[in-house]
Amino acid sequence: MAEKSLKLVYVGDLFVKKPIQVAVTGAAGAISYSLLFRIASGQLLGEEQPISLRLIEVPAAMKSLAGVVMELIDCSFPCISNVNVYDNPEDGFRDVEIAFLIGARPRGKGMERSDLLKANAAIFSIQGAALNQYASRTVKVLVVGNPANTNALIAARNAPDIDPRLFTSMSRLDHNRAMGMLAEKLSRPVSDIEGVCVWGNHSLTQFPDISMAKVAGDHALDLVNPDWYKEIFIPQVAKRGGAIIDARGASSAASAAHAALEHMRDWIFGSKKKITSMGVPSDGSYGIPTGLIFSFPVVCSGGDYSIVKNFQVDLFSRDMLNITCGELTSERDAIAELLPERTFENLRKVVHPKN
Amino acid sequence: MAEKSLKLVYVGDLFVKKPIQVAVTGAAGAISYSLLFRIASGQLLGEEQPISLRLIEVPAAMKSLAGVVMELIDCSFPCISNVNVYDNPEDGFRDVEIAFLIGARPRGKGMERSDLLKANAAIFSIQGAALNQYASRTVKVLVVGNPANTNALIAARNAPDIDPRLFTSMSRLDHNRAMGMLAEKLSRPVSDIEGVCVWGNHSLTQFPDISMAKVAGDHALDLVNPDWYKEIFIPQVAKRGGAIIDARGASSAASAAHAALEHMRDWIFGSKKKITSMGVPSDGSYGIPTGLIFSFPVVCSGGDYSIVKNFQVDLFSRDMLNITCGELTSERDAIAELLPERTFENLRKVVHPKN
Repeated sequence: MAEKSLKLVYVGDLFVKKPIQVAVTGAAGAISYSLLFRIASGQLLGEEQPISLRLIEVPAAMKSLAGVVMELIDCSFPCISNVNVYDNPEDGFRDVEIAFLIGARPRGKGMERSDLLKANAAIFSIQGAALNQYASRTVKVLVVGNPANTNALIAARNAPDIDPRLFTSMSRLDHNRAMGMLAEKLSRPVSDIEGVCVWGNHSLTQFPDISMAKVAGDHALDLVNPDWYKEIFIPQVAKRGGAIIDARGASSAASAAHAALEHMRDWIFGSKKKITSMGVPSDGSYGIPTGLIFSFPVVCSGGDYSIVKNFQVDLFSRDMLNITCGELTSERDAIAELLPERTFENLRKVVHPKN
Repeated sequence: MAEKSLKLVYVGDLFVKKPIQVAVTGAAGAISYSLLFRIASGQLLGEEQPISLRLIEVPAAMKSLAGVVMELIDCSFPCISNVNVYDNPEDGFRDVEIAFLIGARPRGKGMERSDLLKANAAIFSIQGAALNQYASRTVKVLVVGNPANTNALIAARNAPDIDPRLFTSMSRLDHNRAMGMLAEKLSRPVSDIEGVCVWGNHSLTQFPDISMAKVAGDHALDLVNPDWYKEIFIPQVAKRGGAIIDARGASSAASAAHAALEHMRDWIFGSKKKITSMGVPSDGSYGIPTGLIFSFPVVCSGGDYSIVKNFQVDLFSRDMLNITCGELTSERDAIAELLPERTFENLRKVVHPKN
């Protein structure tokens, strides 16, 4: 089955606005199950903007996906103009403006890390090529499926005709966890906190950095013990996902979906001058190799993001950046033969147009 | 553990408004996992109204619930003033204004239907008594846990000091399914359809009635074959939940959560003159025994609902009403010894104050 177009649940007069094509891969999975109903209820693009949902799954999951579609239909969301399901990315990504790449190959029993990287490299190279051929030239791509940063890199490299800056990976969940944990420690509302960043890879090497953070105007580092920051806070933020699996018996789905929604909303509508964290192609800032998809402090406005340049990087932070950067370069090297050269050149050209 | 109060995630200036206490039972279950994040994102009471979430679970599920709370914290929802977890309804229902009773005993292997009714009667009589003792006198209660109608009846009967009209059961999911299926059949948007009602029990005997429905002004029955209505539509709406389980391998959670949200939102903010379906205590309308929690056509306004009185009931509809009403009276009779007499009298007094 290439495509099944479903009967829709749209409100007639919304057709004044053209529906925006929104694609979600891994659409029958747990994160998508949390995300789709929030998108469909208007929390991504507002209740006035009709959306055409394009749900993509592997053939084996199409039956389960059909059940999700039945539930979407049963909700009669006014802003959903129609729901289409696809068992392949080529049809699924046609004219897509917003793409959530959530599906990924999980680590199987006895699977080496390099095998996992290669299995996902195969998936994301196909998806990148499909986006390149069929998606809008201004498609915004968010990779959630792990290893998210490297998967985003692979997709970008296989999409030579799309600006690689449109390929991003999710570190917003880590960012939100860092904000929540600092707020809890200080018994302050999250809204009092600004300037937190999670750097690097979405993995245990991530660096949740509060060295530039302020809490209601005070430096966060003046409010907490440095040992707590280094010995408790940093590892606990990185291991938060594992703690949730321990408690729930299932991985974070609703909070991941929420972070994906916030990542995309800020990118589209702006972050109102607030610093957030996004995995984006490095422009060489902070000594991170150009092109690597690395989580940086960013602000969003006008439908674009920009890396915040004025973070102070002390010796401790530099060490932390080096560790997570080292992991990402080794991930890249492990799947180097699957990264088309041509797109690497293209990547350099678009990121540094003056070179 | 009676109570664990969690560090909060509120925005300071929202404290201009007092937080509303919202309780959810079965808070670690699948429906709640879909519902809580939508409530917390402002879709129940609006983004400006702070909410204090009171999450109730059985002791065995408290660990899993702790994981859900971690995810709620990780989302930093501005309108959530705090999240509390409880392993008992007495503490959980304190000052509650809105209660979603979602947790229920599922049918175990080899369990007789009467055993299931009695097991749930025990749970919901305790919850009714706890609401009676601790909740706000104006608490709005929605029972989602099955058998929902009879569970709502039991809770109401055990809460003699609360107006029994404040105890309702969910038929909105069935209503939405009926709307969606009719829209799909006619290739029309759901917004074109009005006057659909699902009568009776939330079970296979439910009666999804389109005899009064209009589609963009035309009588629905003039647009569909009567055989399709009676032989296909009615059983398919009733069996939709089973079809979703077949497809997904899991029961409807996100669409049930959405229906719960819509039920409560319409009740609080009004249904804008639109007819919807709610399980509410019968006032004797349509010959349904007074006090039985029966799904009727209702409209909501001013924080209240009223049963729509002018539905035509032809011979076919009367038969369908009798079947589902008969099932509900037999459910009530099966747990009669667990229904306190005093509350039955109270119920009659409040529903028919002139008697």
